[in-house]
Amino acid sequence: MDAKILKKKCSRSTDSWNLEVSTIAKNTFNPIRALVDQMKLTPNPEKSMIALSIGDPTVFGNLKPADNVVQAIVDSVKSEKWNGYLPSIGAESARDAVAQYARRENAPLTAKDVILTSGASGALDICITALANPGDNILVPKPGFSLYKTLADSLGIQVRHYNLLPDKGWEVDTNHLISLLDERTAAIVLCNPSNPCGSVYSKKHLETVLGVCEEFKLPVIADEIYADFTFPDQTFHSMASVNQNIPILSCGGLTKRWLIPGWRMGWICINDTQNKFPELRKGLVALSQRILGPNSVTQGALECILMNTPQEFYDSTCQTVARHAKILYDIFLECPGLKPVMPQGAMYMMVGINLSSFPDYKNEVEFTENLVTEQSVFCLPASCFQYPGYFRVVLTVPENKLLEAGNRIRQFCYDHFSKERNGKSS
Amino acid sequence: MDAKILKKKCSRSTDSWNLEVSTIAKNTFNPIRALVDQMKLTPNPEKSMIALSIGDPTVFGNLKPADNVVQAIVDSVKSEKWNGYLPSIGAESARDAVAQYARRENAPLTAKDVILTSGASGALDICITALANPGDNILVPKPGFSLYKTLADSLGIQVRHYNLLPDKGWEVDTNHLISLLDERTAAIVLCNPSNPCGSVYSKKHLETVLGVCEEFKLPVIADEIYADFTFPDQTFHSMASVNQNIPILSCGGLTKRWLIPGWRMGWICINDTQNKFPELRKGLVALSQRILGPNSVTQGALECILMNTPQEFYDSTCQTVARHAKILYDIFLECPGLKPVMPQGAMYMMVGINLSSFPDYKNEVEFTENLVTEQSVFCLPASCFQYPGYFRVVLTVPENKLLEAGNRIRQFCYDHFSKERNGKSS
Ligand SMILES: Cc1ncc(COP(=O)(O)O)c(C=O)c1O
Ligand SMILES: Cc1ncc(COP(=O)(O)O)c(C=O)c1O
Repeated sequence: MDAKILKKKCSRSTDSWNLEVSTIAKNTFNPIRALVDQMKLTPNPEKSMIALSIGDPTVFGNLKPADNVVQAIVDSVKSEKWNGYLPSIGAESARDAVAQYARRENAPLTAKDVILTSGASGALDICITALANPGDNILVPKPGFSLYKTLADSLGIQVRHYNLLPDKGWEVDTNHLISLLDERTAAIVLCNPSNPCGSVYSKKHLETVLGVCEEFKLPVIADEIYADFTFPDQTFHSMASVNQNIPILSCGGLTKRWLIPGWRMGWICINDTQNKFPELRKGLVALSQRILGPNSVTQGALECILMNTPQEFYDSTCQTVARHAKILYDIFLECPGLKPVMPQGAMYMMVGINLSSFPDYKNEVEFTENLVTEQSVFCLPASCFQYPGYFRVVLTVPENKLLEAGNRIRQFCYDHFSKERNGKSS
Repeated sequence: MDAKILKKKCSRSTDSWNLEVSTIAKNTFNPIRALVDQMKLTPNPEKSMIALSIGDPTVFGNLKPADNVVQAIVDSVKSEKWNGYLPSIGAESARDAVAQYARRENAPLTAKDVILTSGASGALDICITALANPGDNILVPKPGFSLYKTLADSLGIQVRHYNLLPDKGWEVDTNHLISLLDERTAAIVLCNPSNPCGSVYSKKHLETVLGVCEEFKLPVIADEIYADFTFPDQTFHSMASVNQNIPILSCGGLTKRWLIPGWRMGWICINDTQNKFPELRKGLVALSQRILGPNSVTQGALECILMNTPQEFYDSTCQTVARHAKILYDIFLECPGLKPVMPQGAMYMMVGINLSSFPDYKNEVEFTENLVTEQSVFCLPASCFQYPGYFRVVLTVPENKLLEAGNRIRQFCYDHFSKERNGKSS
């Protein structure tokens, strides 16, 4: 048949391109990029740039993965055993290693409870996609990591922000949380230790929050990518070890603790000891089939990475970050108009700006912009985390740069702090 | 405030768990798994099992990646340069390598046209998700790779199957294709070389099909994961080299040609030389942010893998597969009741079953089931590819096993072929 004739029979116009991208594609965006790309970031040519903004511990070269981790990849690829397709949820031996690593008293994981993913991002994507439909809502922390909103928005899932309380070590405001709940609340994301806060919750606080989740039958997506990434005097409690009556999907990975974010090895641990939610498990497994799981060579190395990395390696990173936190905290305490909140883990510190003391700037975006212009130091404005009036600093930067950056920030505060205005407003 | 009091204020019942997984999760499933899991696959204990079903060239150990490819990973991980986060679309140098590798006359790719993904599966996921909304439809080949349907179904995108013609080397039935088109047809998936057919299209046929796409303003998702995976006397023509007037999203990767499916390194090449579709490009980039791209160590190795793998390596694989195709084809020609279709590339052959000659079996599922029961040979029933009445064999199996399997299939045909019935029905 001739195309002309068929054209008549076919109910599609041939006039012009009418190519629209999908709603999901249109609605997927990264608010950090969107904000930062708008900023005027022109460093002072007299001063070298120091970025305290990048949540990648590897950028400065001071923090490197452990030798056994590198060697595990070499061995895995040379073995020629890890080139083929693996189950989309991950190889049994690799999942078993995660289960052994992540299990705690009261949270008895086995390989069948683990799904390997492309980073914790991939884990969060699968969990949010599995739990909520368009029109449902999920609760996420404020301040909080922006990916939750990116993923939810794109799927037409509403995001509701529950408050964290800076004066209580960023604990969850459970009253506020409860006030946000309704019949269409499909899940809550809890992040501990926290990006951007660096907070580490006590067992008691986790009991309280998870008690609320239990009461209101709220499935938990536990963003525990900073699990065990705590300062020397702190203890990490996994959510699953605290409450066994609710389904807790714990999202973790190699990214932070092993200092290899680019490797994209993450996981979901399905904590449902009584197997009350088989459909959820099935749904998560089904979603893992979209991209067929993470890199096989890394899966082949996973057992060795999780089992053989020396404790000193972990300790050394945490000690470094804790020391950096103390250094910057002490400097910020001396900065007029700033109010740092001391972290207890992860790699970040949030710093409040008393904006009424800085009449030159109407918000924290202008403040951080001008900190670049004058001092060539970049800190992320916390509206990236839905928390205006603060900025976030990354603590993995080498000590000399950190000190230099801290001193420049102090200078900046002295240069722009206005006592008078401050006096008036307080 | 007390939780009891708040409960009253909160519009969410606390009575019982009402956890439903999302529609996307419910609707994501792999039809191959669904079918194969239902089959009764009990091998004959007297005969060792030979699986001609697994589309993974690495399972038998006869086909191994090139040495430089393994070494490239060793170098990449040891360099310590590839541990950090990379752009979600992939590292510039890695994308540049893909662009150089994939560009052809008339298809002048540069790094900015490339998005690295988690395998070709990840590429297809992003392309389909970017182009179609729920309620739209996409056209996919029949027989065809099942992932297209898995991805589309889960997103509420309708799949319409256009026919391939076995007697014309599995060319597209363009009349049938056009008859399926309507205003909500968002894209077409074309697969060349083909899984499951092993067909390799001539330039002329691609011109015809892409001409139809141009006429009807149809964006093309070009599944070219088997690009250049052609038998010695065949030539692969990339779709982008044939037509420059339509947006062609070419999905490729390391999976097949480099024999490393587990590594999950794929890519999208955005062929839109006149930059007529910037929104599409933006949408694809946005979607890459969900999982932040594929493994960085593999990205670090990509340039070396694409540039330094010796031509003999590629040739050797294709020669092996071509030889295997010929061996099995000749055996199948001798099998009463079977009608093999000689492939020209990829790693598969489709074989028609004249079911009226096999009265013991009512369809190809029963035929292949009993081939396992009696001869311990497993071939995938082609209803996995929406094409009942055929089965698919994988050609990467070692030669001795392949011969043995072929002979057993011949025996099986002799055992069950019924001349009488055949006589009647023909
Ligand atoms: C709180 C939090 N969750 C998840 C992620 C994503 O981790 P990954 O890089 O493993 O995807 C990050 C990364 O910064 C994070 O800070
Ligand atoms: C036609 C076709 N497209 C895509 C894929 C997926 O490739 P990958 O393993 O790179 O995701 C396959 C794998 O078998 C295939 O046969």
